[in-house]
Amino acid sequence: MKKIINHPADVVDEMLDGMVYAYPQYVRRLEGLNVLTRTKAPTEKVALVSGGGSGHEPAHGGYVGRGMLDAAVAGAVFTSPTPDQIYEAVKAVNGGRGVLLIIKNYTGDVLNFEMAAEMADAEGIRVEKVVVNDDVAVENSTFTSGRRGIAGTLFVHKIAGAKAESGGTLDEVKAVAEKVIANVRSMGMAISPCTVPEAGKPSFVLKENEMEIGMGIHGEPGIQREPIQTADRIADRLLEKIFDDLRLSPGDETAVLINGLGATPLMELFIMNRRVAEVFAGKGIKIVKTYVGNGMTSLEMGGCSISVLKLDDELKQLLGAPAETPAFVQF
Amino acid sequence: MKKIINHPADVVDEMLDGMVYAYPQYVRRLEGLNVLTRTKAPTEKVALVSGGGSGHEPAHGGYVGRGMLDAAVAGAVFTSPTPDQIYEAVKAVNGGRGVLLIIKNYTGDVLNFEMAAEMADAEGIRVEKVVVNDDVAVENSTFTSGRRGIAGTLFVHKIAGAKAESGGTLDEVKAVAEKVIANVRSMGMAISPCTVPEAGKPSFVLKENEMEIGMGIHGEPGIQREPIQTADRIADRLLEKIFDDLRLSPGDETAVLINGLGATPLMELFIMNRRVAEVFAGKGIKIVKTYVGNGMTSLEMGGCSISVLKLDDELKQLLGAPAETPAFVQF
Repeated sequence: MKKIINHPADVVDEMLDGMVYAYPQYVRRLEGLNVLTRTKAPTEKVALVSGGGSGHEPAHGGYVGRGMLDAAVAGAVFTSPTPDQIYEAVKAVNGGRGVLLIIKNYTGDVLNFEMAAEMADAEGIRVEKVVVNDDVAVENSTFTSGRRGIAGTLFVHKIAGAKAESGGTLDEVKAVAEKVIANVRSMGMAISPCTVPEAGKPSFVLKENEMEIGMGIHGEPGIQREPIQTADRIADRLLEKIFDDLRLSPGDETAVLINGLGATPLMELFIMNRRVAEVFAGKGIKIVKTYVGNGMTSLEMGGCSISVLKLDDELKQLLGAPAETPAFVQF
Repeated sequence: MKKIINHPADVVDEMLDGMVYAYPQYVRRLEGLNVLTRTKAPTEKVALVSGGGSGHEPAHGGYVGRGMLDAAVAGAVFTSPTPDQIYEAVKAVNGGRGVLLIIKNYTGDVLNFEMAAEMADAEGIRVEKVVVNDDVAVENSTFTSGRRGIAGTLFVHKIAGAKAESGGTLDEVKAVAEKVIANVRSMGMAISPCTVPEAGKPSFVLKENEMEIGMGIHGEPGIQREPIQTADRIADRLLEKIFDDLRLSPGDETAVLINGLGATPLMELFIMNRRVAEVFAGKGIKIVKTYVGNGMTSLEMGGCSISVLKLDDELKQLLGAPAETPAFVQF
């Protein structure tokens, strides 16, 4: 294993400090916890808490700030955060109007966020939750019952965050988060593995010239391993599966995210985006906004995912609302 | 070679189209050329043109937009753009107040930008140029006489761009660009190689567990190959060499860029930043602004660089001025 780290056991702790040092204007760390909250706590709004295993940076700490999350909870690498840490995050950001938990659909995450919600409930804090399951690759998978939650989660952060910032109630914020979840689909692929620091060896092995279509962001199995194809063909494959599940018609408006998994050069993501834009143009589907970059990574995995969000007027307006976080404009 | 591309000969062309599809609000492509200019051409300001070989994305096209560059010229991967393409960029963005060329110090780039300047001069366009040489690792190197220009170039784009946007004359914009160059130093290191698509094999080989300190952004030799050390020790090594050359005193104000070379997880960049912030704090040197991310990459090279810019009031104000480009806020 060759990584720019100190001790494998310290990566999450040191990374969180490094984020706070880099972005003191946006985030601070709760004393003794792996929780980042906004530097300036807003008052009188519904609070949004997300999180999950580390290794997906800039998710989720990079999305803490005005117009998006109020707190992000970081677990160990590819490991759910514990209920007590989530509970502390909820307590820290609850401003009296309730807290929405945004959970990616992994069994451990769902369980631990639910336990935290129960702990908060017992303290009289009103908590609601949504579970993001945008990955159309496979039903059920390692760590997951149902579909996995991947990069489409960022659209939930952005849009529910804007709704909360504009004064929405907990029910309204939850409703718009669920509308995003109902309208976002993603699918990814990988060409090279990543190594969890404490494991010390790659989490999967691909042959030279082999790729996996539909691979998850922790290296969970996808649909098929096969010889790598051209970028255009890869884009077509991912889009076909997305379009099978998300019905789009000519004239529909969408937002698109071409997401790098950590080791994929921007050059390759732009080459993917070229094909995606051409396919959409051919179908007469409008792309209102495109994001290209490393928005939800898998350490140094090579590969990418495509996320497509079908917009309506409300989603479009909230997506375009201002946000100030370390990473939002970054992807 | 395993890459998400179509044909190796098409990567630059398709990448540029992919950028324009992603960011039509910022950039457009000059017909038949590998030149990106602002979508909305400003009038009545000094124009800034930069560029260089491709493979360093988001540099330089990602820095085209209000408050930074007016045009970026993309050569083949790791290859200088040709004089005629640079000349076309200069002609396209010249608004009558002159054009500043921002050149990274590589022999081919310097030569080709100078030839373009002569062509423009013959047409009555006033052109000045600055050459960025921020890399303190080595004097002279493959492709370079003197020091190499690397990620510190982004501070030149930002600050000279702000000066031009505020109405500065060509001489004033050039003077502030030269002030940045005099006050910025960088140094990098690599743990894994990159592969130029048309070459098809890695440009260098490092042994398992070996790193190279001072390596250039095209894989040019650095100072030393040696077993990989901790992130803290790597940060110390890079900073020692930077501090040897850039005299800083307690109370001085700086901006810092922790730059990923393409395949380095954000987690590792934040761990590096933690140490950098602590070293600066220990010396009583202030970091006014930190950027962490992939600002000037080397395809999928693993590794990072640190850039330090010593600020005065003028540089600080211009660094903080608004900018709207695809990638500025991204790093």
